[in-house]
Amino acid sequence: MPVLLNPDRAPTLSELLRAIPGGLVQKIVPGTDQWENPRIAGIGSLVNAGPNEISFIVHPKYLDQLALTQACAVIVLPEIDAQLASCTSTQSFARVVCKHPYLLYARIAQWFEWARQSARETTIHPTAVVDPTAVLAKSVTVGPHVVIGPRCKIDAMSVISAGCVIGADVEIGASSVLHPRVSIYDGVKLGARAIIHSGAVLGADGFGFAPDPTLARGAWGKIPQLGSLIIGNDVEIGANTTVDRGALENTILEDGVKLDNQIMIGHNCHIGAHTAMAACVGVAGSTKIGSRCTIGGASMISGHLTIGDDVHVSGGTAITSNVTKPGRYTGVFPFAEHIEWQKNAAVLQQLSTLRKRLRKLEKE
Amino acid sequence: MPVLLNPDRAPTLSELLRAIPGGLVQKIVPGTDQWENPRIAGIGSLVNAGPNEISFIVHPKYLDQLALTQACAVIVLPEIDAQLASCTSTQSFARVVCKHPYLLYARIAQWFEWARQSARETTIHPTAVVDPTAVLAKSVTVGPHVVIGPRCKIDAMSVISAGCVIGADVEIGASSVLHPRVSIYDGVKLGARAIIHSGAVLGADGFGFAPDPTLARGAWGKIPQLGSLIIGNDVEIGANTTVDRGALENTILEDGVKLDNQIMIGHNCHIGAHTAMAACVGVAGSTKIGSRCTIGGASMISGHLTIGDDVHVSGGTAITSNVTKPGRYTGVFPFAEHIEWQKNAAVLQQLSTLRKRLRKLEKE
Amino acid sequence: MPVLLNPDRAPTLSELLRAIPGGLVQKIVPGTDQWENPRIAGIGSLVNAGPNEISFIVHPKYLDQLALTQACAVIVLPEIDAQLASCTSTQSFARVVCKHPYLLYARIAQWFEWARQSARETTIHPTAVVDPTAVLAKSVTVGPHVVIGPRCKIDAMSVISAGCVIGADVEIGASSVLHPRVSIYDGVKLGARAIIHSGAVLGADGFGFAPDPTLARGAWGKIPQLGSLIIGNDVEIGANTTVDRGALENTILEDGVKLDNQIMIGHNCHIGAHTAMAACVGVAGSTKIGSRCTIGGASMISGHLTIGDDVHVSGGTAITSNVTKPGRYTGVFPFAEHIEWQKNAAVLQQLSTLRKRLRKLEKE
Repeated sequence: MPVLLNPDRAPTLSELLRAIPGGLVQKIVPGTDQWENPRIAGIGSLVNAGPNEISFIVHPKYLDQLALTQACAVIVLPEIDAQLASCTSTQSFARVVCKHPYLLYARIAQWFEWARQSARETTIHPTAVVDPTAVLAKSVTVGPHVVIGPRCKIDAMSVISAGCVIGADVEIGASSVLHPRVSIYDGVKLGARAIIHSGAVLGADGFGFAPDPTLARGAWGKIPQLGSLIIGNDVEIGANTTVDRGALENTILEDGVKLDNQIMIGHNCHIGAHTAMAACVGVAGSTKIGSRCTIGGASMISGHLTIGDDVHVSGGTAITSNVTKPGRYTGVFPFAEHIEWQKNAAVLQQLSTLRKRLRKLEKE
Repeated sequence: MPVLLNPDRAPTLSELLRAIPGGLVQKIVPGTDQWENPRIAGIGSLVNAGPNEISFIVHPKYLDQLALTQACAVIVLPEIDAQLASCTSTQSFARVVCKHPYLLYARIAQWFEWARQSARETTIHPTAVVDPTAVLAKSVTVGPHVVIGPRCKIDAMSVISAGCVIGADVEIGASSVLHPRVSIYDGVKLGARAIIHSGAVLGADGFGFAPDPTLARGAWGKIPQLGSLIIGNDVEIGANTTVDRGALENTILEDGVKLDNQIMIGHNCHIGAHTAMAACVGVAGSTKIGSRCTIGGASMISGHLTIGDDVHVSGGTAITSNVTKPGRYTGVFPFAEHIEWQKNAAVLQQLSTLRKRLRKLEKE
Repeated sequence: MPVLLNPDRAPTLSELLRAIPGGLVQKIVPGTDQWENPRIAGIGSLVNAGPNEISFIVHPKYLDQLALTQACAVIVLPEIDAQLASCTSTQSFARVVCKHPYLLYARIAQWFEWARQSARETTIHPTAVVDPTAVLAKSVTVGPHVVIGPRCKIDAMSVISAGCVIGADVEIGASSVLHPRVSIYDGVKLGARAIIHSGAVLGADGFGFAPDPTLARGAWGKIPQLGSLIIGNDVEIGANTTVDRGALENTILEDGVKLDNQIMIGHNCHIGAHTAMAACVGVAGSTKIGSRCTIGGASMISGHLTIGDDVHVSGGTAITSNVTKPGRYTGVFPFAEHIEWQKNAAVLQQLSTLRKRLRKLEKE
């Protein structure tokens, strides 16, 4: 891990922990010698952290790595701390005792992310094309070659990075960040503290067509997508993800939804609060997904379904019917060496026959 | 559904239907009282339409919703109209009788889409960089920060939105719309009335490499993609979809092809007229797909295959061999609760053995 | 195939072959009459090549096509050449004898690609916004509306096409080409001779969140992604592909990796040299893939796995556990007519019961 801060800008361990909100730290056990209260220039894994970095151990199975770490301070679970305290440990790192080491790591990483950012200029770049009827708070930053349409409203502290194109009547809440080259179509509403990654397209037309034989045999007539897309607060959307606008109603992402890269959310979908989806998931139109779900990477969810709260879908699974009961659901074809797969896959297409033969034997 | 038009701009029902082409309307049954010929400010579903909106019912199973709708006018099938006429209905909405309610809905939505658009300025934005050898019809609109390369030809009424980058020798037919941030590589030809959504990339290099051990063990030498991409009329392409150029021949999308978001069409593919693909489909190189096919979301189609006309592939299916017979094809692993899936998936890898054991029993 | 060069600019066969490096050509057998040493204006398949084009035959199964080709010259395997020489062939094309016809085709295509490109202007377009602290070699080309951030280093001969946005501290090696509208986040390093297609996003945040109940029930706290993305030499990345930066360490693509369109590589992944992935593959975070692997289209690979060298994954396969042994691996549900699939899929969910019933019968 590259050192994040110059040593002279690095805080001491106690300074750093004072800057972290949330009362997560239970106890600090000073390290030995120069590591009593070391300067912390960065954060790294047990294996890769250097002597001016803090690390963390989330599970006793990593005790081997802990024994070899070079980190000057380590976040540990209380039970690991007790174990280290009882043996006459040869390790000299400081220990930060905490019941939620992973969350404390996240918070410390947030601090370093903030600390390494250079002061941002709050300006509208002269190459940006901002419609005169758009209303931008004074603290909004607009990058080069951005386009902002008529009657948009962008709240305080938000950042619209280079090359973003924002249509008419779009609203963006406070402290949101659009990374470069995001597209937002007309009328989309985005809450506060959104993070939208490069290449994401929000509010493009849903896929709506009616068979129109008057045009040609088999031809499709376009159904204009008159609904919009409404996104709550604290939503993160990954690179090249697309979320379509609704046909008649709106597509909705509730507060705290987290979408990874290259996800596709169809028109009229409604995704509940704090539901997280890994990359490459596709959700077909008009499906309603509850709150606090996790959807594994490359899953697909058919259209017009209802998925309840607290449903967890394994990666690569196709959900083709409603799921009302919380729990974990899976449907993945197990891989094998090709020749083995061939043998078994051949039988797959005779399963129904096989069952009949078995029944017959049972009756005999 | 938000009201689309200010009431003073909203047409009456009879004015609206006169503006819809196609002779789809069989009969209009006036509503009662102020709904004899109501002003129609928008269109909504039965459940969500407000009292100044028109709605539609496509199937008798929604009669419950019809009973509760607030819409001032409803498009109904003749048989539903007959049913409503026979009972002494308490409902006061006007009825528009039509054999194809869904298509009429599409046409009315098209009218509202047109009506709500503000008059477009036909200009070339001063920040656009248009090569002096490009030929643009006078009625073409070019947005901010667009780049148009040498010798391009863009026909009447087309719109190239902000941030699009168009290479050399590209041709775009009349009345086509490129939404913001579309890329078109050199030499691609696009027909009339195309709709290309944001982030789409048309004509990028196909994935072609020859093993080249002279570079390094296992190394790949690039095969330049010398073909192009030819797209017919009335084609719609979704957000972040990619269609590659051909290696030696051209990749071809025929008239009326509709591609949803995040689809990938490999080099040298040929997609027949009016074939529609839902989101996240991947078609590998050199595959030929017939006309009027529908390909469900997240399906994949292997390379070098021939898929005939009128083939319908269920979502999530992998098509790995030719399909000559029209019909519906499926291959999806059924999902289940994880623990159930585990039990059954384990047996999957012994299917061939299971069959042998069954055979043995049968012989005994 | 469109003719690539005007006949007066087309080289003769012998001139063309002299321009191809690598000593691949074993022998040239002149054609008859005017095709003794014909001018070669382009390259085409056996079926589509015209009389001023060269073609190639890679396998005897295409001898039928060879008999009908109009090409004036054909690259042939030695054994096919022997066969043609022995019979009193009526064919008049020149023969280029070569043990690796496909590789020679690739090299000739490279020559035509080079020959048809117009001389490139080496300029920084006046609309580009280049930070004054960025260091660009003199021979670098920067297109319209490009944005290049502070302290970037771009080496000789590289081309940054229109609409690309490059963050701070990015390094790009010599002779690399970024097609239009590529995003590169801060701190990413890219080797020499890279080809990055339109819409690709390199170095966006990985998908990292820690449960943070202090925010709300089920809420996720962001883990800033402090690592970077390091890409070797000779890497090609397809349109709209995304490769995320690391959480604490770096994501790494080694030399010669080839990624097709719409691929997603998660944070902390390490992809070995000369590994090639077809379109729509997803690789979840922290997975290590060896060298010289090929990953078929629309495959997915779970996170935290180790895949060895020389592993070949069939398209559409989900790899959910480590693969240490070289070989080909598959896991695809075979498709069938829908009604057949339904019958067999129903049994799939009783497999474990079926096995029990079989065991019972065997014991009787």
